[in-house]
Amino acid sequence: MADSKQRTVFFVSESTGITAETLGHSLLSQFPHIDFTYHQRPFVDSVEKANNLFDEINQVAKDKRYKPLVFATMPEYKINRILQKANCYYYEVFESILDRIGKDLHTDPKRESGLSHGLINEKSYDARIDALNFTLKHDDAMVLKTLGESDVIIIGVSRSGKTPTSLYLALKFGIKAANYPITDDDFDKEELPQVLLDNRHKLFATSIKAKRLHQIREKRRPNSQYSSLETCKSEIKKAQKLYEKYGLKPMDVTSQSIEELAAQIVRKLNLKISKDTLI
Amino acid sequence: MADSKQRTVFFVSESTGITAETLGHSLLSQFPHIDFTYHQRPFVDSVEKANNLFDEINQVAKDKRYKPLVFATMPEYKINRILQKANCYYYEVFESILDRIGKDLHTDPKRESGLSHGLINEKSYDARIDALNFTLKHDDAMVLKTLGESDVIIIGVSRSGKTPTSLYLALKFGIKAANYPITDDDFDKEELPQVLLDNRHKLFATSIKAKRLHQIREKRRPNSQYSSLETCKSEIKKAQKLYEKYGLKPMDVTSQSIEELAAQIVRKLNLKISKDTLI
Repeated sequence: MADSKQRTVFFVSESTGITAETLGHSLLSQFPHIDFTYHQRPFVDSVEKANNLFDEINQVAKDKRYKPLVFATMPEYKINRILQKANCYYYEVFESILDRIGKDLHTDPKRESGLSHGLINEKSYDARIDALNFTLKHDDAMVLKTLGESDVIIIGVSRSGKTPTSLYLALKFGIKAANYPITDDDFDKEELPQVLLDNRHKLFATSIKAKRLHQIREKRRPNSQYSSLETCKSEIKKAQKLYEKYGLKPMDVTSQSIEELAAQIVRKLNLKISKDTLI
Repeated sequence: MADSKQRTVFFVSESTGITAETLGHSLLSQFPHIDFTYHQRPFVDSVEKANNLFDEINQVAKDKRYKPLVFATMPEYKINRILQKANCYYYEVFESILDRIGKDLHTDPKRESGLSHGLINEKSYDARIDALNFTLKHDDAMVLKTLGESDVIIIGVSRSGKTPTSLYLALKFGIKAANYPITDDDFDKEELPQVLLDNRHKLFATSIKAKRLHQIREKRRPNSQYSSLETCKSEIKKAQKLYEKYGLKPMDVTSQSIEELAAQIVRKLNLKISKDTLI
């Protein structure tokens, strides 16, 4: 059954398992024709837990009659050695690269767990939480007068993905991301509020295809005026007119994920990312 | 200057660069005595962009008189080959493991970019956004009557990290995470609201050290009754009493990061994580 199209995958770590999971998912996304089932096994930080997981992996191999895939980040040798012997395809994500870096930098790695996603640097961690609080406070144009303190202000019509992107930027990068929905009030005046114009260099304008916007809004308020394709088309057109008035070049977000959009924003505005403020 | 304690690092990708960045950060966290400066270079998806980056890397190597470190996820050979020749320590994060997986699974990887963090599966992507909207709506006990639809309800005193953790769970895993701050009203009644008790199996109780809570609240409302060490101590004690009444075992969040707490919650409640709902 070695060629079965169904596979069990374990993400294993002495700590959160975020790294093993992120890399494992990325690698396996290169095999879209195979159906993977994922299991997280974080905080495997003792010989006893490693032995239990060893048994679990072997049991899966026996029951399913094919070897599971195991992605592990195990800076400490002791636990790594136990899992390596399980009946699985074992990928130690750190191993080969960690040693190479050590050689390249002429220094030994610490080989301690919890260094990357733990609460190591309280000050920069708190800064990330501060950014998140700022973003929550400045979501959906709730507060305008302190908008100048933001790192970026995402603008666009209602329901075009501004809020999730802002939250992602804050949580992941510690970026103070505000957002402003362009609504009837702005369309009627045919201008953007002064506080936005005062922070023009921080504006990130977005556009979206009417069909997709209609689809998103329908889920929110089915069969409403707000969600009708006609309203969506009209708002998008008026927003475009406003962008042109101020020379703003919008980015089409229709087929972009939050992560892709966030990466674009960081790049375009050349935003600073603290080394400790990464998820 | 090969042993300089200051190093420039590039995270390079044809797509968002999230994987290169996550793994690169984790690996470099094992060298805490070295001071790294990070640069993100996402969407390097053409020969022209690769050539520009090639020049940039070489310029850094020349100016700083030591080689920068480059972490790259480059499933396509063409661009990878250009960057490999730059004057740097080049770590292709996918390379060795991707080939091994292909061999182990008896199938070739697709070698396409944007498969892991793009908007590939619209349905599961939308589910993640739905989870985020649910979490925003059920933050801070704003809505109680639909609490039963949540996957987890985090409870604890005000400002103990419930909101960031809930948002992280929603954004990263597509988990509907509500949270409920235990306040004076509950303390006075000496009981938790019925809607929480009806969803007891979804409750995740948190505790925190008074000194840390005091420190967090001081930033929010300096020199207030709310932030005083005395109030913090008293609230924590009363919350503990409520937990005991209902047989809830709280987790101490004092020295845990959002990521660590989220991983603990997923593990303890054995929450299901969709394969497409990962940041």
